[in-house]
Amino acid sequence: MHDFEKSKTSVCPKRSIWPKRSIWIDKNTQTVKVIDQRYLPHKYIIYELKTLKDVINAIKQMVVRGAPLIGVTAAYGVSIILQNTPSGVDETACLLEECELLKNARPTAINLVYAVDRVLEKILVENDLNIRKSVALTEADNLAEEEVENCRKIGEHGVALIKELSDKKNGEQINILTHCNAGWLACVEYGTATAPIYKAHDLGINIHIWVDETRPLNQGARLTAWELGEYGINHTVITDNCGGHLMQHGLVDMVIVGTDRSTYTGDVANKIGTYLKALAAKDNNIPFWVALPSSTFDWDLDSGVDQINIEERNSDEVRFISGELDGSIQKVSIMPATSRAANYAFDVTPARLVSGFITERGICKASEVAIKQLFPEKFVLDR
Amino acid sequence: MHDFEKSKTSVCPKRSIWPKRSIWIDKNTQTVKVIDQRYLPHKYIIYELKTLKDVINAIKQMVVRGAPLIGVTAAYGVSIILQNTPSGVDETACLLEECELLKNARPTAINLVYAVDRVLEKILVENDLNIRKSVALTEADNLAEEEVENCRKIGEHGVALIKELSDKKNGEQINILTHCNAGWLACVEYGTATAPIYKAHDLGINIHIWVDETRPLNQGARLTAWELGEYGINHTVITDNCGGHLMQHGLVDMVIVGTDRSTYTGDVANKIGTYLKALAAKDNNIPFWVALPSSTFDWDLDSGVDQINIEERNSDEVRFISGELDGSIQKVSIMPATSRAANYAFDVTPARLVSGFITERGICKASEVAIKQLFPEKFVLDR
Repeated sequence: MHDFEKSKTSVCPKRSIWPKRSIWIDKNTQTVKVIDQRYLPHKYIIYELKTLKDVINAIKQMVVRGAPLIGVTAAYGVSIILQNTPSGVDETACLLEECELLKNARPTAINLVYAVDRVLEKILVENDLNIRKSVALTEADNLAEEEVENCRKIGEHGVALIKELSDKKNGEQINILTHCNAGWLACVEYGTATAPIYKAHDLGINIHIWVDETRPLNQGARLTAWELGEYGINHTVITDNCGGHLMQHGLVDMVIVGTDRSTYTGDVANKIGTYLKALAAKDNNIPFWVALPSSTFDWDLDSGVDQINIEERNSDEVRFISGELDGSIQKVSIMPATSRAANYAFDVTPARLVSGFITERGICKASEVAIKQLFPEKFVLDR
Repeated sequence: MHDFEKSKTSVCPKRSIWPKRSIWIDKNTQTVKVIDQRYLPHKYIIYELKTLKDVINAIKQMVVRGAPLIGVTAAYGVSIILQNTPSGVDETACLLEECELLKNARPTAINLVYAVDRVLEKILVENDLNIRKSVALTEADNLAEEEVENCRKIGEHGVALIKELSDKKNGEQINILTHCNAGWLACVEYGTATAPIYKAHDLGINIHIWVDETRPLNQGARLTAWELGEYGINHTVITDNCGGHLMQHGLVDMVIVGTDRSTYTGDVANKIGTYLKALAAKDNNIPFWVALPSSTFDWDLDSGVDQINIEERNSDEVRFISGELDGSIQKVSIMPATSRAANYAFDVTPARLVSGFITERGICKASEVAIKQLFPEKFVLDR
């Protein structure tokens, strides 16, 4: 276990000091470091990214997770590939090959491919390896800063929705349900779904967050609860089964979730179970918002259920649950060893169930027309 | 750990021999015994019911669970109260007082109150304590046999629904999703939701069961998976978040669940999360069936969401997960110790989302009119 360390590019993440960051460059070692999110909230462990293998492992094994953080990690990954370029090889061929491996580390988060391609585009116009290294690092830093700024803006725009409800209820507590972790741990700072929540708290709005535990890996119970607790935000962890009941009984005022990939028509891929909460929100006339930086839109897809590749992960994530026991992390088996288990990691919430998107440019409905109004430059080609 | 023992009233439950029973009278000790379901599938432990305290503890702590089994256990509980009647007290006053305690052990399952009242009605017309003891035991035995027979009939009626789908799909695999455990462990034999499944398997219909793990206590992953595995039925455990995704992709042909209490208008209280699956089934045009003996209908309630008392259980069931680790049962903590957790045990699925009920008398729509047609004697009073 380590303390948080100073980042080259930004204020360091440090317990109980805001802002926090989930990825940074260690000033002394000049290496990229991340929080190993597999061990939170029980242990606070730093994971160092030195090789492509480290980066791919971090993404695959979910040391880092969350669409924006996966993207930024992958961007630094390109820089790490360059740092490790062996001598006497075709540098560009080697780079492209390794970037392909990196892009395939996980299938659903669009930010992974976006980030790698973005850094690649900047470096492929250069020929000198040292210049490439420097350009890659700068571009990864830029992406990190952009993600932070996007999340900050998502908070600014999204808080208006919370404030509106709070005013309607004359300042009574606003109950917000969220699924999985779309917090600063999933991003670099602020988070997506949590950005309006942190901002509302800063403004003194009376809020309470229902945190879905989010099986199989419990990112809600482990990460969102930890984040919110560290920031002093009133919250309650519930099982994934519970939200519908709460909504039926008027105990949820709004839902805000993140997304790993959304179509330009408004369909939302997010952690498995999101679709069920969206159905319950619709059935109870509760607004269901999706917070995302525009880098999470897939401008090529028009139908989420048909076209978004849903990752199927190792069934051991269902069979076993990790938790803390007498100070150490243990995995217990929760089902018969002879039974099969299946582990689909995401689902798609159709646009018709989404009240709208909270983006860095503002709020829009979950429709092609509305998304186009906010991001016209993405629609320059006829589809 | 013990072997299954011979029951006074029926074939004993024994591993891998059908039929199995979840409650029986030990021939030698003349005591009521049940399987301690808290330890399945990892350990097979028998729990003996000798005092009212044992019975209440078994119901409260979920040694036994499931509406029909709670009812039968409570019926034997009345007999156990009588066995332990102290001398020199007002026997009837004492009996009534203790029966009240018993009826309040858990709030949602209607069978608990029904069973206690039913046995009480039979014994209160007798004056002699020994006759009361004998009558109570006989009535509890009768109730157990009726539950078995009802479940058997639910299987006979329900299998027609599976067969119909199987014929439509030309014998291709029929995928059935179930939530929680409404199997023989929840009843005495056969189960409610599982009765048509066991029957379909017996008839050689090609079926596969998606088993929701059912947090917080994982009755699906622990109990339903164990039951189905013991009977050789093809099944896969999934997280509670997963069913909506499977339904969107044509991987679920029907849903069958049990219920702890249903209104005579067709609203269904069942394990928390059932409502979310019903919403997803509706959204994907998949039949959603509820299997129940008519003793689970509450003939006094017409609105489930407003009128059914939803039990809120200890939040430790959310905070910790039990499982097997190196041969022993351990509890791991899955969230920050400083965060709050809430634990609502049931939710209500409105009749509009239910395709129909599978009862011991046949199948009917989830409406007052249809339920009345099947059980006219329950509607003799104008409401």
